[in-house]
Amino acid sequence: MPTSEIVQTVSSSGTSGRSVHYALTASDHAKWNDGIANMFFTAGIRPTDVIAHLTRLPMVGGGLPYADGLRKLGATVVWAGGMSTERTLETIKTLQATALTATVSFEVYLAEHCREVMGYPPSSLGLEKLIGGGEPGMGQPEIRSQISEAWGVTHLREAMGLSDVMAGMWAECGQGNGMHFCAQRHVAIELIDPDTQDQVPWAEGATGEVLYTTFSREATPVLRFRSGDIVVVTETSCACSRTSPKIRCIGRSDDMLIYKAMNVFPSAIRDVILDEHSDHLSPHMRIWAEEVGQVKFDHPIPLEVEANMDLEETMVQALSGRVEATVRERLGIRVALTVVAPGTIPRTDYKTALVQVRDS
Amino acid sequence: MPTSEIVQTVSSSGTSGRSVHYALTASDHAKWNDGIANMFFTAGIRPTDVIAHLTRLPMVGGGLPYADGLRKLGATVVWAGGMSTERTLETIKTLQATALTATVSFEVYLAEHCREVMGYPPSSLGLEKLIGGGEPGMGQPEIRSQISEAWGVTHLREAMGLSDVMAGMWAECGQGNGMHFCAQRHVAIELIDPDTQDQVPWAEGATGEVLYTTFSREATPVLRFRSGDIVVVTETSCACSRTSPKIRCIGRSDDMLIYKAMNVFPSAIRDVILDEHSDHLSPHMRIWAEEVGQVKFDHPIPLEVEANMDLEETMVQALSGRVEATVRERLGIRVALTVVAPGTIPRTDYKTALVQVRDS
Repeated sequence: MPTSEIVQTVSSSGTSGRSVHYALTASDHAKWNDGIANMFFTAGIRPTDVIAHLTRLPMVGGGLPYADGLRKLGATVVWAGGMSTERTLETIKTLQATALTATVSFEVYLAEHCREVMGYPPSSLGLEKLIGGGEPGMGQPEIRSQISEAWGVTHLREAMGLSDVMAGMWAECGQGNGMHFCAQRHVAIELIDPDTQDQVPWAEGATGEVLYTTFSREATPVLRFRSGDIVVVTETSCACSRTSPKIRCIGRSDDMLIYKAMNVFPSAIRDVILDEHSDHLSPHMRIWAEEVGQVKFDHPIPLEVEANMDLEETMVQALSGRVEATVRERLGIRVALTVVAPGTIPRTDYKTALVQVRDS
Repeated sequence: MPTSEIVQTVSSSGTSGRSVHYALTASDHAKWNDGIANMFFTAGIRPTDVIAHLTRLPMVGGGLPYADGLRKLGATVVWAGGMSTERTLETIKTLQATALTATVSFEVYLAEHCREVMGYPPSSLGLEKLIGGGEPGMGQPEIRSQISEAWGVTHLREAMGLSDVMAGMWAECGQGNGMHFCAQRHVAIELIDPDTQDQVPWAEGATGEVLYTTFSREATPVLRFRSGDIVVVTETSCACSRTSPKIRCIGRSDDMLIYKAMNVFPSAIRDVILDEHSDHLSPHMRIWAEEVGQVKFDHPIPLEVEANMDLEETMVQALSGRVEATVRERLGIRVALTVVAPGTIPRTDYKTALVQVRDS
């Protein structure tokens, strides 16, 4: 493909390691606009919305391509990312934004910053719709309710895509319970068993890795591209009348950990803990690895979870034992839990890694 | 105009004070794309170019609107702004960019950073075309040759626009000697005397302030909008066969200084100094004001100019006298010059103010 035909490049975020670059021709670009607009429409964004677009880097999939999809949909794009947090909040206020799209981490961070630094509650901004994506988290009820309460917003929708294929392809409809596939016109999907690579039918409750094939992508097309996203099919029909499968992302094949030959996703550990102990523990957690890329753990996996604001010191010991027992029971693996004070685990303004390396 | 019709907001950079917001409907957006694409085409950008777009803030006129105009033109947009300087340079290298668009200050800063921090000459990146704008500077031969030499690029073009009207409207063609108006299809221009407000004909050598009127702008239209840009008409016909007037921007009415009832633009002082003394002095200068917004000076205007690398200490005294005499002779005003060492005056990655306030 000659560069005269390429109108734009997009890169992976490169949060860890080097970024990978992809190319779009004018025709590819039109298809992305259509798919991404469909994703935002499914997530409930309408031409009457004024949407604050909070991505910092224009070059990544969630940057310029999201702005294009939103304009194609007809919403008013207010690209308030890449500014100071103060100016971002000021812009949302001044332009009376009704909606917001950002990574899940940033939505948590921005709410805290608004309250603590600016001194007013995020709910006073009057936002009505929050779209979150870019990382797991929005699929987890406890994280959702934390974000929902902080912002005073009940219209919360998860969205997902891949720079390698199309930056936005999945979004929750008003029914919740998983994300619909929104890019049927341009991309084919398959589900496979990540170990055997056998096809898995799109049936409710099935889990597997999603594979993508572009129909007519001109620059950097993909054929049976392995996404690394491990999903569970939540529904194959929906009261909203959309017919595409609905999924929830439960982890990535490349962040799977192995505890004594048992496979487990960091996000699965978080899900189990929040499922049973969210009265006392927050969604902020991290697993400590000894070195970059460590996958195998032969001793209980070292895990830190932040206590909720009102957890009493005297309860910690007994709680730790109960949590470790829950995880062992439900996932068959052992964790070594340390309960830490609220605010101990650093928040990032972009994607937050659940696994971190000690002493780095 | 209902928000359902607005697809995007654009804001002034807000480098000083609060930013002002403007709105675009789908039709306004299409017109901006056309005008801005025409501006970049006039500046020599072609569909075969891979252009590094180095604006940090997507929300400003030179951000998302420039990316749109470039894609409309068919060039390959690599939006490498908003990243660390290292990653910006790495991206230009990896994607083999042939062209670059940025503010003039950033082009100077990036060349210095490339040489000093990355340790390789900017010319090794293989860029062929540089577009600079966002502030005066590119119109000045000494600044041009400094940028040209640093980057090893002879195709240097100035471009200009206003968020209030259309983010890109003027650009130099291959003939140089001023910027053509490129938005005739959408915007009408007039030249006026900024004091009397009388119309001034577009004749070679005429100076005045540019006024803009949008033909069919749907959201935030403007009628005889005073830009504050003071320009000189350099030509009214051009060997490139374009028929629109050509201008050079010589200052802004709101940064004009008054020395004992004499009007003078900071950029005019710089022009005169570089015109006669660029063997010894660099384009980096600043005027020291006593307070924000100071316009009147009753004593010689305090001015710092950076020496060139090879200026000998013993020459400074005599040189200062000669420079002060040149300015007095050609502009009728007095400056009190201090020659400072190379690198003394801070570089910014955005627009650099020629007038600064002491002790702030």
